[in-house]
Amino acid sequence: MTGRSQAISVTKMRGNLREILDDRIAVEEPLEIRLGYDVDGQRQTSSVSITMRTPGDDDDLATGFLVSESIIRSPDDVAIIKPCRGDNTIRVELESGVDVDLDRLQRHFYTTSSCGVCGKTSLDALRVQGVEALADDARFPRDVLVRMPERLREVQATFDETGGLHAAAAFDPCGELLIVREDVGRHNAVDKVIGALFADGRLPASQLGLMVSGRASFELMQKALVAGMPLLAAVSAPSSLAVELAREFNVTLIGFLRGDNFNIYAGEDRIA
Amino acid sequence: MTGRSQAISVTKMRGNLREILDDRIAVEEPLEIRLGYDVDGQRQTSSVSITMRTPGDDDDLATGFLVSESIIRSPDDVAIIKPCRGDNTIRVELESGVDVDLDRLQRHFYTTSSCGVCGKTSLDALRVQGVEALADDARFPRDVLVRMPERLREVQATFDETGGLHAAAAFDPCGELLIVREDVGRHNAVDKVIGALFADGRLPASQLGLMVSGRASFELMQKALVAGMPLLAAVSAPSSLAVELAREFNVTLIGFLRGDNFNIYAGEDRIA
Repeated sequence: MTGRSQAISVTKMRGNLREILDDRIAVEEPLEIRLGYDVDGQRQTSSVSITMRTPGDDDDLATGFLVSESIIRSPDDVAIIKPCRGDNTIRVELESGVDVDLDRLQRHFYTTSSCGVCGKTSLDALRVQGVEALADDARFPRDVLVRMPERLREVQATFDETGGLHAAAAFDPCGELLIVREDVGRHNAVDKVIGALFADGRLPASQLGLMVSGRASFELMQKALVAGMPLLAAVSAPSSLAVELAREFNVTLIGFLRGDNFNIYAGEDRIA
Repeated sequence: MTGRSQAISVTKMRGNLREILDDRIAVEEPLEIRLGYDVDGQRQTSSVSITMRTPGDDDDLATGFLVSESIIRSPDDVAIIKPCRGDNTIRVELESGVDVDLDRLQRHFYTTSSCGVCGKTSLDALRVQGVEALADDARFPRDVLVRMPERLREVQATFDETGGLHAAAAFDPCGELLIVREDVGRHNAVDKVIGALFADGRLPASQLGLMVSGRASFELMQKALVAGMPLLAAVSAPSSLAVELAREFNVTLIGFLRGDNFNIYAGEDRIA
């Protein structure tokens, strides 16, 4: 397997000083996800995604992506996952009888409304997929939240080498980091976490929070919601549509989680 | 038009202090790009992209995207650009007779090689599109480069309000910022810059550098290259495939541009 970082020779300018040094950079390679499924008893294979990712945990990346897109729901849906045609293609074969709606992957679902696309149609599309507002029972202590960014940084092995990776983690209300994944793509890091939870049979993860090293966008919030995770905490800012989604589907959204401070944009009742 | 930031009420935790304050967040809304073109004399319209973006400069975002994907090459290709069906759809009508290869937009070009996808096929795909290595004549003084991050921050109006936007800028060797754009999506910020250069008839921008507020990925490097920009400077880390692309197509790649320091990953001859 390709590594997550690779050696490189770099010219470092430090003021007027010029040095050529050995350094390491994060590996970025395309991954093609191929899906095998039945249509009227005939086996079909479709290429459903090509994403630029950091190699490693490709099986989790593939299943996490398919879960996020509401294509698969249970480990029982999946017959086999295996690399094919080299290191950068992975094939997910579904059990026969699993219903697949590939139209969702075309992302045309944003445009089903005759009024054109807007934030509202994006939220409606989730409802059409059967996504529901989350229950209120999980609780996350303030002290646990403020420790999360530092805990995450401590275990970011490849970030330490390269300074070039996003991270995502699933954590419980006691502050234990259950799964941590790094990737050049922020969505990929989250898909890898969700795929790992999926493989462990832990979805919906109704008592776990999701921590991300960057900002909170609509897509990351959508992934947390579909995985049933009641809290998304981001080191940086959320977007308007992430906040709208969080409030509409009752997900707790934390932003600017830095030092002892953070902002709560939605679902404050879950902060103990 | 929808604004770039919006007011919101937020619970701010500062240590054990809890306050509810008015704040502003970056707006994120979907934009659908529709392309009108002729096939055998018949007018067709296709939805070619739905991207989550911050409203504003949607015409530049649309044309910059189409340029980056090598769908259009000259302002003469475009008959008209106009919003349709509300604020979140934009239609680009091409002049009749302009050849369009929509297969490129399917991103299947990564997979043309029978050996599966890899970094090499991603580079080969650019060559198939007719992208060539850049000429060597542009020069950027070290002093200009080290001033760029601060100059960019000074003009990031919406970032100041929200802390939640990426920025991209085109600058000349004297350090003048010619075009600055902000967006929740890093690719969108770059597409907006390239679209503005395109509208001004300034592509290929063979004497301009591109500055980005985050990391340098393969896709950002590809956009700079297709726009003919000989230098990409990033505040954060580059990926392995960005470096490979830069070296192969002779683009200067600067990373970790902070204070007086920066790293040169490719094309050092252009640094004066």
